Amino acid sequence: MKHPDALRIALVGIGKIARDQHVPTIAARPDVDLVATVSRHGTLEGVPAYHTLQEAFAAQPEIEAVALCTPPVGRHALAATALAAGRHVFLEKPPAATLAEIEDLRNVAQRAQRSLFTSWHSRCAAGVAPARAWLADKQILRAHITWKEDIRHWHPGQDWILQPGGMGVFDPGINALSIATHVLPRAFALREAELHTPENRQAPLYARLAFVDTAGVPVTAEFDFLQTGHQRWDIEVDTTQGQLLLGEGGATLHIDGQAQRLPASSEYDGLYRRFVELVRAGESEVEIAPFVHVADAFLLGARKTSAPFVW
Amino acid sequence: MKHPDALRIALVGIGKIARDQHVPTIAARPDVDLVATVSRHGTLEGVPAYHTLQEAFAAQPEIEAVALCTPPVGRHALAATALAAGRHVFLEKPPAATLAEIEDLRNVAQRAQRSLFTSWHSRCAAGVAPARAWLADKQILRAHITWKEDIRHWHPGQDWILQPGGMGVFDPGINALSIATHVLPRAFALREAELHTPENRQAPLYARLAFVDTAGVPVTAEFDFLQTGHQRWDIEVDTTQGQLLLGEGGATLHIDGQAQRLPASSEYDGLYRRFVELVRAGESEVEIAPFVHVADAFLLGARKTSAPFVW
Repeated sequence: MKHPDALRIALVGIGKIARDQHVPTIAARPDVDLVATVSRHGTLEGVPAYHTLQEAFAAQPEIEAVALCTPPVGRHALAATALAAGRHVFLEKPPAATLAEIEDLRNVAQRAQRSLFTSWHSRCAAGVAPARAWLADKQILRAHITWKEDIRHWHPGQDWILQPGGMGVFDPGINALSIATHVLPRAFALREAELHTPENRQAPLYARLAFVDTAGVPVTAEFDFLQTGHQRWDIEVDTTQGQLLLGEGGATLHIDGQAQRLPASSEYDGLYRRFVELVRAGESEVEIAPFVHVADAFLLGARKTSAPFVW
Repeated sequence: MKHPDALRIALVGIGKIARDQHVPTIAARPDVDLVATVSRHGTLEGVPAYHTLQEAFAAQPEIEAVALCTPPVGRHALAATALAAGRHVFLEKPPAATLAEIEDLRNVAQRAQRSLFTSWHSRCAAGVAPARAWLADKQILRAHITWKEDIRHWHPGQDWILQPGGMGVFDPGINALSIATHVLPRAFALREAELHTPENRQAPLYARLAFVDTAGVPVTAEFDFLQTGHQRWDIEVDTTQGQLLLGEGGATLHIDGQAQRLPASSEYDGLYRRFVELVRAGESEVEIAPFVHVADAFLLGARKTSAPFVW
């Protein structure tokens, strides 16, 4: 059952992430009501479907907010249209295709007096808040990110990921960076990077990154999009008081090898709770740090060519 | 003659830009005094020379400020060292190798209560301020940047430009972007880009960029680092009230073909005037818009491989 004042939302881009995460999360929350979809091809049974935002807003002026689940290239135009039409906007990660686009959306939202939310779902994983709390007063010696997954399994046929702006392995890797920028107590900056791009594609499938934080502590990362077998989404942090291991993309937490009890939690439930909170408070949350690190990697990274990729 | 209260400055990185621009500009200004150089190899006759900032500060504690003319990779560490040692910092363009580094320097300068100046010399070209004033109330139809110069002539043997972080043709191109972000009345964001990189190098020598401003006006650019013969650094802006042409990197200004009288002006003189002003006022000026567009181009741009480059 939905509350009478549930936030009436249209879901834009009915693809894998919308079906896997947004639809069940919205269905389970009484304070959000899915009243329309906007997609070129996708539809959801029992939900009015449109091809454009304009059609949706004309037919259902009661739509208060949109959640954008389309690929990052093109997301800015949709978000700007929705904000200018007086709707609040929830952006999937990454929030746009470029930093200048995000900056523009921040300004558009401010002028329209509507809420803009740059969501980073991995930050809502169960182990993230406890990891941040544990690390806050520790002396950190080094941190290392291992993010290795199989693109063929998790993104079957999603060619946009390998096109310009699709970010390649940084599409999952930005999740790791969204956690690291949140749990590590100090900001860090890229020193060196290596990006390996298949000769027949535009985006890297493999990357090694070496950052250093403001206290000189090394933060390193290895991203691999061709990992078969055991999939790994781990962040290890060595401190003078022991080792922290955030595993499974933040879902598990070990301190010195001891599994920590974590509250039950769903990433997207946390995101929608936060979005409703922002809308009700008349506020925006625009966080670009993970995106900045990706842009820096593309800017500074050495390029290597790797074997052609075929699905 | 120098004023008794001239700003005592150390020049760091004694290469082409230091010799061509900084040294004669400082020599000509009574309010800045060049008291030391820091460089691995370069020295200037009659000026005490050091290999590291630490040596310079230890030997000459009276140094109040440093101007960093080293390549962008590595500039952050020098700037952070100088700020932490209580010196004001003038950064050549681009201000650092990554966006995260610039953000860090902003914070370091704030904590150290010292002035940080991200200089963009092309913004001080004679035609820029008049162009900005003329465009302020015009209805713009389109803008196009043509930035074509010969790397072999202007950057002979400077291999760092073609290494990771050297930015390739964006090293001159960022000058064009520093002007465009200053004279055009609205912000713009990248929509599409193409970057051509020689197969034996890491940075592009050619780029085409398509931006759109917040009112939907197209802003396009073509950067070429292999231009022989006539060199071009032009920004053309078509408006409903005529065409503006900023030529020669901003040194000349034509409106509808009519050359405009411009005040005599030197780019670096303008920069040093501004730096002294900032130091005396206890302020910083950190402007990242041109750099953001370059990062966006590397992030979003389609990659093409071009013929090997040899000097």
